[in-house]
Amino acid sequence: MFMSNDHNLLAELIEALRCLPGVGAKSAQRMAFHLLERDRGGGVRLSKVLDEAMQRIGHCQSCRNFSESAECAICANGSRDASLLCVVETPADLLAVEQATGYRGRYFVLMGRLSPLDGLGPRELGVELLTGRLADGAVRELVIATNPTVEGEATSHWLGQLARTAGVRATRLAHGVPLGGELEYVDRSTLAHAFGSRQVLDD
Amino acid sequence: MFMSNDHNLLAELIEALRCLPGVGAKSAQRMAFHLLERDRGGGVRLSKVLDEAMQRIGHCQSCRNFSESAECAICANGSRDASLLCVVETPADLLAVEQATGYRGRYFVLMGRLSPLDGLGPRELGVELLTGRLADGAVRELVIATNPTVEGEATSHWLGQLARTAGVRATRLAHGVPLGGELEYVDRSTLAHAFGSRQVLDD
Repeated sequence: MFMSNDHNLLAELIEALRCLPGVGAKSAQRMAFHLLERDRGGGVRLSKVLDEAMQRIGHCQSCRNFSESAECAICANGSRDASLLCVVETPADLLAVEQATGYRGRYFVLMGRLSPLDGLGPRELGVELLTGRLADGAVRELVIATNPTVEGEATSHWLGQLARTAGVRATRLAHGVPLGGELEYVDRSTLAHAFGSRQVLDD
Repeated sequence: MFMSNDHNLLAELIEALRCLPGVGAKSAQRMAFHLLERDRGGGVRLSKVLDEAMQRIGHCQSCRNFSESAECAICANGSRDASLLCVVETPADLLAVEQATGYRGRYFVLMGRLSPLDGLGPRELGVELLTGRLADGAVRELVIATNPTVEGEATSHWLGQLARTAGVRATRLAHGVPLGGELEYVDRSTLAHAFGSRQVLDD
C-alpha cells in the first residue's frame, strides 16, 4: 500500500494500526504520520504498555473482569458489600455502573451475552463460576444490569432463573424515559415500556 | 481512571492509546477492551511494529520523506525522472500525489510549511538540501504542490523564488472548481479564483 513492493516498515505500521476498532486505512495512515512526526516518545511508550498489557492482563478468578492479578481490585476490596452481586455484560458496562452510581457491592462480568448464533451459551458466560458464587451463601441480591436489547433481555431472563434456583433475590435495572429526555423524542418502545411500568407517586 | 488508585496496567494502556490523534478517553477505552477481548494477536503485532517503526524510521537524505534506509524507495528508483522535482508539505501529500497522478519524477518533502508562529522557517523546511538539489543541474522543473492555504501560498511564493534564483522553471498545481463539483456549492474564493484563471478553449 505504501509506494513500494519490498519490505516497508511504514506500510506495516499502517496495516498494524488497523487492528484498532474504527480505524480504517486513512486514519491508520494519519496515526502513523502523527506518531512519526510529532510523538515518537508516545509511540514507544504505547508499544511497551501494549505488549505488557497483552501478555499480562487476564481475567479475575471470581468476577471474570480484566485483571493483572488473580483477583481484581474490586473483588480484593474487603470493604465492598459481598451481599450484592451486579451482573454486567462487559468490562465497559462495569466501568459505566462504577462511575455513574454509588454502588458498593461486587460484580460479575459475563464477557458477552447469550447469543447462540455467536456460539455464546451459559458455559461461555461463566455459568459455573456464577452458580458457585450464588450458592456460597454470601450473595442476597443479584442486580441484573444486562443491556435492554433482545439478547440482553434473554440473558436477564436466564440470570433470573439462576437466582431463583439458588434462592437469591433478583432485581433488574429500571427502564424508561431517560432523565433530561423529552417524550417527543423518546423512541416508541421505550415510551410504551415507561407507560406500562408507570409508578404510583408517593404523597 | 480505571477503578483503583494503585498501579493498573489497563488504565495505563487506555492512557497510552490517547497519544493517537483523534482518540479520546472513550475511544481509547473501547480500543483497549477490543484488543483484550478479541484481538490480542493484533495487539502484540502492533506493539512490535510500533516499536520497530519508532526506532528505525528516519528521513530520506535526499527528499526528507520517511524512510528506513538512508535513501527512500522513490529516490533510489533509477527509473524515475530526475529532471522533475515535486515539492509537497507532508508525506501524506506525497502519497496523495503518488496515488492519484501518473507523476514519475522525484519529490521533496518539506515536513511542514512556512509558519513563523510555529517556529517553522526555511531552515526547518530543509532549504539547504533543497537548494543543493536545485543547484546540481539535474532538476529542470520544480512542481510546487503545497496546499492552497495562506501558509501554503506563502511557502509556494518562497519556493518560486528559490527556483528562480537557481534558474529552474517553477510550476504550481492548478486551482479551480473541483471535478464533479457544482458551481452552486463551490466556496466563493475558489470560484473567484477559477473565474479569474479561466482558460481559452482550444478549437
